[in-house]
Amino acid sequence: MKLYSYFRSSASYRVRIALNLKGIAYDIVPIHVLRGGEDGGPRHRDASYRALNPQARVPALELDDGTILTQSQAILEWIEETHPTPALLPREPVLRAKVRAIAAIPCADIQALQNTTTLDRLKTQFGADPDALKVWVQAFVGDGLRAIEALLPAPAPFAFGETPTFADVCLVPQLVAARRFGLDLTPFPKILAAEAAMKGLDAVQRAAPEAQPDAE
Amino acid sequence: MKLYSYFRSSASYRVRIALNLKGIAYDIVPIHVLRGGEDGGPRHRDASYRALNPQARVPALELDDGTILTQSQAILEWIEETHPTPALLPREPVLRAKVRAIAAIPCADIQALQNTTTLDRLKTQFGADPDALKVWVQAFVGDGLRAIEALLPAPAPFAFGETPTFADVCLVPQLVAARRFGLDLTPFPKILAAEAAMKGLDAVQRAAPEAQPDAE
Repeated sequence: MKLYSYFRSSASYRVRIALNLKGIAYDIVPIHVLRGGEDGGPRHRDASYRALNPQARVPALELDDGTILTQSQAILEWIEETHPTPALLPREPVLRAKVRAIAAIPCADIQALQNTTTLDRLKTQFGADPDALKVWVQAFVGDGLRAIEALLPAPAPFAFGETPTFADVCLVPQLVAARRFGLDLTPFPKILAAEAAMKGLDAVQRAAPEAQPDAE
Repeated sequence: MKLYSYFRSSASYRVRIALNLKGIAYDIVPIHVLRGGEDGGPRHRDASYRALNPQARVPALELDDGTILTQSQAILEWIEETHPTPALLPREPVLRAKVRAIAAIPCADIQALQNTTTLDRLKTQFGADPDALKVWVQAFVGDGLRAIEALLPAPAPFAFGETPTFADVCLVPQLVAARRFGLDLTPFPKILAAEAAMKGLDAVQRAAPEAQPDAE
């Protein structure tokens, strides 16, 4: 299995965590989203990468038969369905929905507002400077984390009990971006507790941006 | 079951389609996202609604025992797990991942960039006028639909074969927003074919924004 990944991409980071927690072997193929392309542009916009993933985004997971899976949430569900142990979703449907709802907040309500394409458009279309981008990202990440903190049960020590779930898998990468943009995380003790539990795991440590072959 | 819904919310529309396709009975509780609140503000920001959904968003699904489910993707998965017939996901894991990847593009890559909160911030933080908002939305919706069109198989007549899946469920509401912002849809024949197949179904017609009790 090959994971097309960018060390700083939170969506790639989610998939790295899940693969590592499941003990699935994979090779990282670094795809730079700012440079490294065949035409001098960013690598992810190369025709050769678009042939793999027409959306020109990371991550993409290439299975051993050449099948390409895209979109981190779809990849996480595939991993869970094909490698059920250790489980990253509870068994009971309402609990599964609650875990998936937490995981969806970074994926659906925050990430699109903080990613490179969006920040680039804010710069080109509205002349946003770094301070304006920080205000923008802090607003949306703050809203999302406040909702998550309100929705989470008490940490035990992971977000939903004694083992990691998709909720923890999606929270850890979100906090990297939150810190990069200077958000004060002290109002989020439940989120920080889940993160601390995750960071104690070797599988999570090996998935970290700074542990990647393309880390800068 | 009660669905807290806003007629024009694409996330609410997804859930209405899925509930109707499954033949699940539910009552609509309209939650206006622009007005109707107890303090003169928007209804979804009321304390009484936040007590149900701390994220103050629609949709939320209230089960008969009072349990509240949030986040449209998590609700769709819960519906599929608890009401498996008719199936809205194929059985084979790779196909399920491909369906979920299409569904994730509107949910994760487009919706956050076109919703009311985001457009309001573009206005207040960057002084965006209606023309600028149109350029912004068209750019992101266009990118997403181009990716979907490239990833979809030939229509048959739904996005993934003879019956609707989560892909169709998420595409139909996305096209409402695409048209509202004046995007040319002629480059997307596969997407339009799936939409046409969906619009032939009574379940989908009953879920439409204009068929809702709160339609304006």
